[in-house]
Amino acid sequence: MPSFTAPIPDLQFILHDVLDVSQQDIPGYSDLDRDFTGAVLEEAGKLARDVLAPLNQSGDTEGCVLENGVVRTPTGFDHAFAQMKEGGWTAMDCDPDYGGQGLPYVMHTAAQEPFVSANMAFNMYQGLTHGAYSAIHAHGTDAQKQKWLPKLVSCEWTGTMNLTEPHCGTDLGLMRTKAEPQEDGTYQVTGQKIFISAGDHDLAENIIHLVLAKIPGGPDGIKGVSLFIVPKVMVNDDGALAARNAVSVGKIEEKMGIHGNATCVMNYDGATGYLLGEAHKGMRAMFTMMNEARIGVGLQGYAQAEAAYQNAVAYANDRLQGRAVTGAANPEGPADPLIVHPDIRRNLMDQKSFVEGARALTLWGATLIDQAHKQGDATADGLISLLTPVIKGFQTDKGFEYAVAAQQVYGGHGYIEEWGMSQFARDARIAMIYEGANGVQALDLVGRKLAQDGGKHVMGFFEMIKGFIKENEADAALNAQFLQPLKAASKDLQAAAMYFMQNGVKNPNHALAGSYDFMHLMGHVAFGFMWARMAKVATDALAAGAADATFYETKLATGRYYMTRQLPATAMHLARIESGADPVMALEAVNF
Amino acid sequence: MPSFTAPIPDLQFILHDVLDVSQQDIPGYSDLDRDFTGAVLEEAGKLARDVLAPLNQSGDTEGCVLENGVVRTPTGFDHAFAQMKEGGWTAMDCDPDYGGQGLPYVMHTAAQEPFVSANMAFNMYQGLTHGAYSAIHAHGTDAQKQKWLPKLVSCEWTGTMNLTEPHCGTDLGLMRTKAEPQEDGTYQVTGQKIFISAGDHDLAENIIHLVLAKIPGGPDGIKGVSLFIVPKVMVNDDGALAARNAVSVGKIEEKMGIHGNATCVMNYDGATGYLLGEAHKGMRAMFTMMNEARIGVGLQGYAQAEAAYQNAVAYANDRLQGRAVTGAANPEGPADPLIVHPDIRRNLMDQKSFVEGARALTLWGATLIDQAHKQGDATADGLISLLTPVIKGFQTDKGFEYAVAAQQVYGGHGYIEEWGMSQFARDARIAMIYEGANGVQALDLVGRKLAQDGGKHVMGFFEMIKGFIKENEADAALNAQFLQPLKAASKDLQAAAMYFMQNGVKNPNHALAGSYDFMHLMGHVAFGFMWARMAKVATDALAAGAADATFYETKLATGRYYMTRQLPATAMHLARIESGADPVMALEAVNF
Repeated sequence: MPSFTAPIPDLQFILHDVLDVSQQDIPGYSDLDRDFTGAVLEEAGKLARDVLAPLNQSGDTEGCVLENGVVRTPTGFDHAFAQMKEGGWTAMDCDPDYGGQGLPYVMHTAAQEPFVSANMAFNMYQGLTHGAYSAIHAHGTDAQKQKWLPKLVSCEWTGTMNLTEPHCGTDLGLMRTKAEPQEDGTYQVTGQKIFISAGDHDLAENIIHLVLAKIPGGPDGIKGVSLFIVPKVMVNDDGALAARNAVSVGKIEEKMGIHGNATCVMNYDGATGYLLGEAHKGMRAMFTMMNEARIGVGLQGYAQAEAAYQNAVAYANDRLQGRAVTGAANPEGPADPLIVHPDIRRNLMDQKSFVEGARALTLWGATLIDQAHKQGDATADGLISLLTPVIKGFQTDKGFEYAVAAQQVYGGHGYIEEWGMSQFARDARIAMIYEGANGVQALDLVGRKLAQDGGKHVMGFFEMIKGFIKENEADAALNAQFLQPLKAASKDLQAAAMYFMQNGVKNPNHALAGSYDFMHLMGHVAFGFMWARMAKVATDALAAGAADATFYETKLATGRYYMTRQLPATAMHLARIESGADPVMALEAVNF
Repeated sequence: MPSFTAPIPDLQFILHDVLDVSQQDIPGYSDLDRDFTGAVLEEAGKLARDVLAPLNQSGDTEGCVLENGVVRTPTGFDHAFAQMKEGGWTAMDCDPDYGGQGLPYVMHTAAQEPFVSANMAFNMYQGLTHGAYSAIHAHGTDAQKQKWLPKLVSCEWTGTMNLTEPHCGTDLGLMRTKAEPQEDGTYQVTGQKIFISAGDHDLAENIIHLVLAKIPGGPDGIKGVSLFIVPKVMVNDDGALAARNAVSVGKIEEKMGIHGNATCVMNYDGATGYLLGEAHKGMRAMFTMMNEARIGVGLQGYAQAEAAYQNAVAYANDRLQGRAVTGAANPEGPADPLIVHPDIRRNLMDQKSFVEGARALTLWGATLIDQAHKQGDATADGLISLLTPVIKGFQTDKGFEYAVAAQQVYGGHGYIEEWGMSQFARDARIAMIYEGANGVQALDLVGRKLAQDGGKHVMGFFEMIKGFIKENEADAALNAQFLQPLKAASKDLQAAAMYFMQNGVKNPNHALAGSYDFMHLMGHVAFGFMWARMAKVATDALAAGAADATFYETKLATGRYYMTRQLPATAMHLARIESGADPVMALEAVNF
């Protein structure tokens, strides 16, 4: 069975060495000193290692079962969920007015990582609840907040998001679910929703469904969509549970992975719903929490790769096979461990340099969210809006790729479910699809975010990189190994953006045909920037005589790997982008 | 449920337009005229579409079951296997002396493709049998051939390959299975083998296991390994089945995919075995059929991608979601089909241009096998030895990547097993692992094949490409769109080979750290060469006023896509290779 240990020194490195969180002038950040975050992460790591990780494989094998209309989660999930609640892990960044701890989002994000690595399917139950909490917190009336939030914060009740219908996912304007207004101000919600994660289960006494639906007579298409609170069990004004609402589970989908989470078909048969936010503004309400939700999925991408990587390293050190070409490394043994072989190291270094780059980008992104939400910082808000599709799309593509690469280290054993490496790949696969498939992320990036506010945010990103390079180029080693490669990659990204500007206007297909490559190109540049920042602080730490020199030297070596072996991809993506729409659009649909 | 139609026009295009098989001076090729191969492929396509494909998903869901020591295959596999045998599909390229049809290997390969696309797990039962046939045919005594081959040719009996043991896969020198010589000239084989595909089942009355084992007292390591024929059921001299041999199934492995094929732990408890070939030369005996086996796996890679692609195209044409950015393509409908969107096309064109390039390379490789085997052509033999790890490693990596990409077209539905797209990805995954994991293919390519016979074969490959370019560069369009990109890619490959030559001697890690990138770089060059050849014949056909102009124009457009959007990868691979071993080998094992 695979094992998992929370990478606490790596998380602390990002929070303190790179982001220096406790010194940031953001509300709540002054509390985040090294001891505090260390203590929090230590506890999160224990829960992840001792409680969540041991249920990952059994949860996959057992899956969820629909019995008499109720979903039963895998053995042990109930006890683990109780511990998650008791530890207050579900309330960490929630509003203290509703029972939350009011910590910054960056602390929540850092603490979530080990949970997601240890058991992604399990952690989705609270993850979805957090999404429902955010939506009601942002758009609910005071009465709604009082009624629904405390129990969502504590996870006594859990939440879901209901967007997709059988005939529409990305294009929600085609939605058919109806919400008919009643005399008492409530709505009767009728329709079928599919792919509802945590749609039903036995971990909580109530489930609060957030449902997108159309109020008859409203505008056509996406502009006529409203958001509703639809509880599984009705709640009296005194907070007591009342009768069942007209919501039922149609079936549990049989999926490729995340078997421990029930993905449900939900049927609403005139269920009582409460309008959340304004009528016909449902999409806007969903979008306000989109950045956080998508960053959460981007975290899933690298968190699964982290768990897979840890096990691949253990196997590569343990498994004896062949001899190092430069001479036996384990002459007393029958063979050398796999890790002596250059191609095994190439594979592991790919994984390691990805995961650490992703962690840095994700946590930096979380600080931008805090700046935007807690300080109303429009620059931070614009930047994180720009980076969100990159964090989601690039990190989940690569997260899956490297979970597969980690599986490959095991040879034939990687294909056998018993070893657990297949599950990491199967579970990671969903992150490329849900919360907006990665093609849609690329479209959002190129079709919407790039030009937002006159292209201000992407320009700001380029300036930020330029400024960082300028500030640090006096350091010859840093300059040669990190800043110059970053400069070249950033130049490729600027050339790609320029290509879109010059050609996208006359034919938008010239931009959209290159959108996926742009998302990956920008991912590499963002990672290169993160690695340059990490290298800078590692260099400084070593110059200052840091006690743990090996830790910082390892960071530098891993960063150099990323710069030399991964950044060359930017030129390839640029070449593809500059080939334009013609090769992509050449065929008639019937000739595929 | 996914569907499948054999791509007969594409197969015919490669066989006749590109390879012009019936005009080749290779024994048996003169029979392969367009009508003959068309009739054969038509029948193969029917069997694939009507019998094999409908059992693919049910075979995955049902899997194989071990009951009272005997493996039961999924419902319907027995009838399908009977039809496969009756149609003579298992005997196509086998020796007529033993009941085969004696057709060239290229015909066998072309006919296998639809079977593998339709149901990879099912087709492995005959695929493994073909491998056992080849080994006995190449290394058996006349008596052994008479005894075992006819039933393997007809698939009345099936075969297996037993190499891996729990503690060794790639490094077979660590093998523990013993074969002790008996007074009657037989051996008693004792040990455990794992990952034995088609290790047991209910499709045949006997199973002929080919088992690698060590004869006590022989040389240490890999040089002391011998190959044995170990039947499941003993066979009398008159061919009648006798008592069960001491071979049993320990268990069926629970795998990520290919559930329809039983992957068994096999226990040999003093089983009677017959030495095949010379004592202690077992590895050499295995190697003689390695090229064919690996090309067969390379075919699996693209055949799965082909099946996944066909379904992705159908879905992209069917599913209405969003509007074309350049104006509604389906104004009467509620939305446009997915296929109008540039990023969906980018994805589909990636798949299409890969599959067609792979088909060309694989069938060309099959003609080289025929030249080598039927004509003793050492140049062809050297070239196919060089190309084999590329066909296996590159095509299975990309085959999986594009099966995943096809799944992505389905959005959330791609993750639901009911739609069948997950299975293509899960099944394709194994091809990257078995028959030598792809890292081992890269090692074989760079550590062994490149320098073979003084580097003659890779030089020959470069010369062949150079000659082709020279011969055709007068055609301006062909030159600009195909030959110049091919020349640039080939230059990158030569630079990489040069880097290895100059740096690999002083430190072999400089070569091995770049081996995986070299395999992919060479894959792109080989595909670029294939596309240039396909473009040349398509151009000629159009110039000659071919009736099906759309077919040839589609080939040209697909090829242009490959050249502009895929070949830019070669520069990235070269940059990685030229960064050498240092970034890859920098860390101590404990610091991963």
